[in-house]
Amino acid sequence: MGSYNIAVVGVGAVGEEMLKVIDERNFPASSIRILARTPRTIVVRNKEYLVEATDAESFNNVDIALFAGTEGEKGAAVRFAEAAISRGAVVIDNGADFRMRQDVPLVVPEVNAAALDNHRGLIANPNCSTAQLVIALKPLHDAARVKRVIVSTYQAVSGAGSAAVTELADQNNSVSGGTEVKSSVFSQQIAYNVIPQIGGFDDAGYSSEEMKLVHETRKILGDDSILVTPVVAARVPVNTGHSEAVYVELEKPLTAAQAIELWNEFPGVSVWNDSLDPKRAYPTPLEAAGSDETYIGRVRNDLYNPYALVFWIVSDNLRKGAATNAVQIAEALVERNLLRRN
Amino acid sequence: MGSYNIAVVGVGAVGEEMLKVIDERNFPASSIRILARTPRTIVVRNKEYLVEATDAESFNNVDIALFAGTEGEKGAAVRFAEAAISRGAVVIDNGADFRMRQDVPLVVPEVNAAALDNHRGLIANPNCSTAQLVIALKPLHDAARVKRVIVSTYQAVSGAGSAAVTELADQNNSVSGGTEVKSSVFSQQIAYNVIPQIGGFDDAGYSSEEMKLVHETRKILGDDSILVTPVVAARVPVNTGHSEAVYVELEKPLTAAQAIELWNEFPGVSVWNDSLDPKRAYPTPLEAAGSDETYIGRVRNDLYNPYALVFWIVSDNLRKGAATNAVQIAEALVERNLLRRN
Repeated sequence: MGSYNIAVVGVGAVGEEMLKVIDERNFPASSIRILARTPRTIVVRNKEYLVEATDAESFNNVDIALFAGTEGEKGAAVRFAEAAISRGAVVIDNGADFRMRQDVPLVVPEVNAAALDNHRGLIANPNCSTAQLVIALKPLHDAARVKRVIVSTYQAVSGAGSAAVTELADQNNSVSGGTEVKSSVFSQQIAYNVIPQIGGFDDAGYSSEEMKLVHETRKILGDDSILVTPVVAARVPVNTGHSEAVYVELEKPLTAAQAIELWNEFPGVSVWNDSLDPKRAYPTPLEAAGSDETYIGRVRNDLYNPYALVFWIVSDNLRKGAATNAVQIAEALVERNLLRRN
Repeated sequence: MGSYNIAVVGVGAVGEEMLKVIDERNFPASSIRILARTPRTIVVRNKEYLVEATDAESFNNVDIALFAGTEGEKGAAVRFAEAAISRGAVVIDNGADFRMRQDVPLVVPEVNAAALDNHRGLIANPNCSTAQLVIALKPLHDAARVKRVIVSTYQAVSGAGSAAVTELADQNNSVSGGTEVKSSVFSQQIAYNVIPQIGGFDDAGYSSEEMKLVHETRKILGDDSILVTPVVAARVPVNTGHSEAVYVELEKPLTAAQAIELWNEFPGVSVWNDSLDPKRAYPTPLEAAGSDETYIGRVRNDLYNPYALVFWIVSDNLRKGAATNAVQIAEALVERNLLRRN
């Protein structure tokens, strides 16, 4: 196994997490170049990193370029992915701009690493709420075919960037101190509130976040017949860790116990579903934050339909939902010998 | 219309709200006796009230006894309802103890006021999360018959009493100040977290809060064929206002626009579903708190099934979910001439 020149583009909540994850997982990086709009120095896990301004030349000799992406606005990959690819890098983009393009693999390595084999230099990382959903669905789909998914989400503010985390803390302090609550990242107060909108609405009334769950789930599972209905993707006053309440209809009956067995054998999944163990009765976002696992709990059969299951999924949106998955894609590229300068 | 001697039993979050609502709605009370475990003086809406210790004799000459109820433990109605009824009072109980008893009407006046007609002295108020759900379902059920409901909730801490509201504020301050977070009302930290459990679990893994949605919805709508699947009833760090993400399958196709028309004509419902109006794009718990309305937004047809709708419901759990509904039951008893000492 060689050693690789890495670029991380963007150092908001996700970019910083990428640096942490590269370090934690001992990814074989011979150099890490950090690129952003504004040159500066940052400290992550007690290491100092120099941040350079991004331009096309920044990608000279880079083997893997991890774009942190942004929610909502167009990511840096729109401007710089081509420059990076033309210089021999493989781009892994956490932004939403290229995910649905047919020539771009959209990958969660535990689920569809093989989709990497025909990459053309650009690989997309899924949306945070999709990553944890497909991890939970994959073993069920393989065993009993998923026909229908009805899902509502409870999403952390860090999905909207680090400014959103600061905004929530500031608002909590304002409420506590009786001073005026100010909102700028969110359209209205998120402290002590739930906002049932993430992203813009389409003509049918679905938000962009909701439709990502529909399209990305099908693409990653490689099955366009799966009917995903996102009821509401909502923002809750939580810093990190997205939760999802999921109803799944299968082609074959599956008991809750059978589903748990399947999950227990699946990489990256931890089942917390023991109502007798107060520490592992079910996962919460606070407990999932900082971990790379996808946690599943509250597993039951539907009350009426033995072909349907309901459960609760929680995962760290900045890690498995973004940074960790991107670094795992890089690891899979190394393992499968798919880098362009191997 | 006469004037009535009222007793309010319990002065936690719901009991205090009952006093406010009686006052706000000018309910014709000739006297209000406030009963609780511990005698004391309280101030509600700038009025001072004397709280007396509850015993059987407290209900002498009381026409209407409103029991505030408690979540979890047995309510005071278990001990005192019989004493009140035998003295000629009609008991309206917000607790869960009698709701499913066949000889006890379970009433949301906009939905099933007629169920009051055969009362035997004891009337039950539904659970907070059920009240807003049946308000939303009723006009759909009348127009197109509801076959299936799949629902997840985002519930405010005040549903667990005023100590829970204090606990959330204290925990937010601890997080902000970097001091130890203490939990006593909830099993774990609720600040910056989501807890996917409300009430104990049954053998199938459903919580008592979830099963209330199943049984109470059927009883109030008077149709045991309605299949309600509660995916997850979760507690979120919100003080007041429960939210629900709802998927409904109907016997006849109904467009989102038709559903909105039905709701616009239904008492107690406000539709906020205009994505072009930033003030009324959709309801949030902060906006619903303090109001008696049930707010509905994010109304769409399912992506695949014209017989299915998805939407978002928000209502003040202490008001329409508890105190307001109880006082509306009292108003309906007066109107329908159903008090025992009319």
